[in-house]
Amino acid sequence: MIARVPDVARIGLLGRGTVGAAFHELVVQRADAIAAAAGRRPEIAAVLRRSEGDFDALLEDCEIVVELIGGTEPARDYVLRALRAGRHVVTANKQLVAQFGDELFDAARDAGVQLRFEAAVAGVVPVIRVIQESLAATEITKVFGIVNGTTNFILTEMANTGASYEDALLRAQELGYAEADPSDDVGGADAAAKMAILARLAFHTPVGLEDVTYEGITEIQPDDLAYAKEFGLSLKLLGVAERRDGGISVRVFPCFLYRHHPLAPVEGPFNAVMVEAPAITEITMSGPGAGGVETASAVLGDVVSILTGRAQVHAVREELEVVRDVNSSFYLHLEVADRPGVLARIADVLGRNEVSVRSVVQRGLGDDARLVMVMHECPEASFAKALDEIAPLDFLRSQPRAIRVIEEEFV
Amino acid sequence: MIARVPDVARIGLLGRGTVGAAFHELVVQRADAIAAAAGRRPEIAAVLRRSEGDFDALLEDCEIVVELIGGTEPARDYVLRALRAGRHVVTANKQLVAQFGDELFDAARDAGVQLRFEAAVAGVVPVIRVIQESLAATEITKVFGIVNGTTNFILTEMANTGASYEDALLRAQELGYAEADPSDDVGGADAAAKMAILARLAFHTPVGLEDVTYEGITEIQPDDLAYAKEFGLSLKLLGVAERRDGGISVRVFPCFLYRHHPLAPVEGPFNAVMVEAPAITEITMSGPGAGGVETASAVLGDVVSILTGRAQVHAVREELEVVRDVNSSFYLHLEVADRPGVLARIADVLGRNEVSVRSVVQRGLGDDARLVMVMHECPEASFAKALDEIAPLDFLRSQPRAIRVIEEEFV
Repeated sequence: MIARVPDVARIGLLGRGTVGAAFHELVVQRADAIAAAAGRRPEIAAVLRRSEGDFDALLEDCEIVVELIGGTEPARDYVLRALRAGRHVVTANKQLVAQFGDELFDAARDAGVQLRFEAAVAGVVPVIRVIQESLAATEITKVFGIVNGTTNFILTEMANTGASYEDALLRAQELGYAEADPSDDVGGADAAAKMAILARLAFHTPVGLEDVTYEGITEIQPDDLAYAKEFGLSLKLLGVAERRDGGISVRVFPCFLYRHHPLAPVEGPFNAVMVEAPAITEITMSGPGAGGVETASAVLGDVVSILTGRAQVHAVREELEVVRDVNSSFYLHLEVADRPGVLARIADVLGRNEVSVRSVVQRGLGDDARLVMVMHECPEASFAKALDEIAPLDFLRSQPRAIRVIEEEFV
Repeated sequence: MIARVPDVARIGLLGRGTVGAAFHELVVQRADAIAAAAGRRPEIAAVLRRSEGDFDALLEDCEIVVELIGGTEPARDYVLRALRAGRHVVTANKQLVAQFGDELFDAARDAGVQLRFEAAVAGVVPVIRVIQESLAATEITKVFGIVNGTTNFILTEMANTGASYEDALLRAQELGYAEADPSDDVGGADAAAKMAILARLAFHTPVGLEDVTYEGITEIQPDDLAYAKEFGLSLKLLGVAERRDGGISVRVFPCFLYRHHPLAPVEGPFNAVMVEAPAITEITMSGPGAGGVETASAVLGDVVSILTGRAQVHAVREELEVVRDVNSSFYLHLEVADRPGVLARIADVLGRNEVSVRSVVQRGLGDDARLVMVMHECPEASFAKALDEIAPLDFLRSQPRAIRVIEEEFV
């Protein structure tokens, strides 16, 4: 072991992809300023890549391990070994924290070290710190927002240009906002992992990926966005974690927001998160959702926090039940034969299931008609039952399409 | 001295007005949750009010002093004595931190204790923590926003109802958003103190109230707001702290924002702050600007931070010069005689001073006309010189009125 200058903080870097390289550069650039602020100068002492480097040697030589490999293995193994060896860990890996949170937090607590992961959720938006530190004394009732920049870019592109989902996805890939295999983003799994993390921290309860009900945006049609404009709605992939009926509900779903909703103007690859609690009313935070240098900045912020302070490791306080049946308001898009009695029939099915209609637009399409309705809030199970009765009706020309609508006090 | 249960954190509370009472209640309500999170149970061990209590006894009996008296004396004396006696201090007092920051930070650093003041700026919006902790490694270039909820309420009311400044102020007072003597809020001094604090923390340089150029909203006319709508503008009292020409500029001024500016939709008694830096692009945070329980929540968040961690005390890193002459874009409102050559004459004065016109609306008023112009960005000194030449022109029917306009990439 080499003798160390006492004021250097030695960092072991796992992974040197886009974020890893940006982080390495940022450490070099900002080392002086950090030394001035924190009293210690950070230095990348060792790097482990897929093809080179020895993890045990890195561990021996560093006090902070920064994990930017992504994926769950070998990231999980490395992070657990680092924590157990008494090293602080910073990670940007949302799947790791969402899927193995309990194991990781226990290991950090047992070893008396910090585990920080600001970059894992909402990019540069410091939602983890705000929930864990600023709001540590606050009983949070709801955390929700736009936590996936790829899908927000695609939906914005579809709304603004009328592009199909496929074309908007291609555009996102060209601009580097979507990966070659975008399935985790567009299918909702990425947002679900982030919401599992936020729900865990906000409600101090174990939440895993399996507790999150999620849908993505792959079924959204340009039509839906065009009609939405007539209702003054904009479409977002929303993550919602909230206390409900003594338990919690954690969901990710595409959803229409009314024009005055604070999240409605969030466009492009941005993230925005709102936190609600009686004692604070609400806090809204927004910023770029990803990007190499932005993510690297969030990681570096965590490193500086480790250098300058102690912090509590997340601990479960109670086990809250996951409530699956919640109330929602829906938008329903139907293509039907244009003949008498159709609207009455549909209205009857909805009424019998206690689903009440808020607004309707009907438009002729030759022999067919398009019927777009927005419902008042009702139990999701009631709406699903109504939909099951509507789908086989003989005058339907295509599968009904339903999308949730957030009815807030902003309406 | 009474023997202490080791897991109780004894708090001395200075002041028991609206915020003090809300804080006291919140501590009682949340003590169990905080004990679970922080390992120690906070307890209000002593309260000092104007009419009762002994400061020395309080100091002896507490490890954390929470200052909610407001004003600069005796608050400054108490806080300094508490810090020097090795007590952590939490304060919501913006004037105290803005005017005596250097003295207070030095005292905290010398004693090795924490001085926290999240509630002093932007209410429940955790901008202090984000700048000092999340962005400790980031070279911030600009911090700006709406940091006074009273004036934002008044301007929103004027814009939405056409009310005069006086009527909107009365309404704010009725609703508890403005004090009986509103001069600190409406004159800009309150926002100036907050911007001095934000500038100091963002740029690590000593900034006092005297470094902030500020104006309030008392001269705003309903006319200005009506015309602004035609240009798609909304009016805010903005605080802006930014790096300029190797120095810094810190200003507070009423100002028009274009419709797509992220701060344009912030209405009512809300605050919103944006932080810009190359490595993060931007972060926007918003929430209620004041309110007893909201402010008390921010104070309690600081108390929990003291219980759970260490933190660096702000330290000056360099002394940056305050740059006073900056570039701005202006809106200019003129009432003139409706006769040939007037517009040409005004355009000539502007042109000779290198002020270039972006848009004009002219409207007849009987024998007079109203001329409303928006300029492109120019040095403020050039615009002031043009205004000095325009003011005495014989065809002017009233004093010219000028208000800044923020031209951003959002336009």
